[in-house]
Amino acid sequence: MIRDVLDRVGDKWSLLVVATLDGDTMRFSELLRHIPGISQRMLTLTLRQLERDGLVTRTAFAEVPPRVEYALTALGRTFVDIAHTIARWAITNHPTIEESRAAYDAR
Amino acid sequence: MIRDVLDRVGDKWSLLVVATLDGDTMRFSELLRHIPGISQRMLTLTLRQLERDGLVTRTAFAEVPPRVEYALTALGRTFVDIAHTIARWAITNHPTIEESRAAYDAR
Repeated sequence: MIRDVLDRVGDKWSLLVVATLDGDTMRFSELLRHIPGISQRMLTLTLRQLERDGLVTRTAFAEVPPRVEYALTALGRTFVDIAHTIARWAITNHPTIEESRAAYDAR
Repeated sequence: MIRDVLDRVGDKWSLLVVATLDGDTMRFSELLRHIPGISQRMLTLTLRQLERDGLVTRTAFAEVPPRVEYALTALGRTFVDIAHTIARWAITNHPTIEESRAAYDAR
């Protein structure tokens, strides 16, 4: 039960997509540009999972060419705080982790 | 840079191992029993990564039979707070996520 939610919460790309969508409505192409390293396929999969989990809405506008926009839901916004907490922790502790890795690899 | 730390922070098994080690020194076999669903191989890998990242210490006692114990480092303890925040979020929102998934799958 909780573990599969941890899968979502623990998924790096979900964290980055949610953090990128924070306070914004974005199109697929914008998201692709804003998240370095994510492939088109991975972004498609991640958005679909986030939509299925109720963290993101997908709105398609009947226009030519068709326009699709993504935004966070209320639940998604509660998840953003966690994403930011994790990002802050990562930024703060990255140097210490790098030192530890170097020492471990030098053993 | 941050993304590979997110890999660690975002890894479900790392979160569960750290949360399980919170305030405790445990042997491998105890960890294996306390984390349902984790394989021996995955626990070995996860502990090695956590040790390399400086979140966990591994202490081997020169006894017969040999005894090995794992504990959180100071850095590991700062990571525990994040693990608990994520777990609380998961527990709180799991019903909403399950409802959303059911609705999505019924489309």
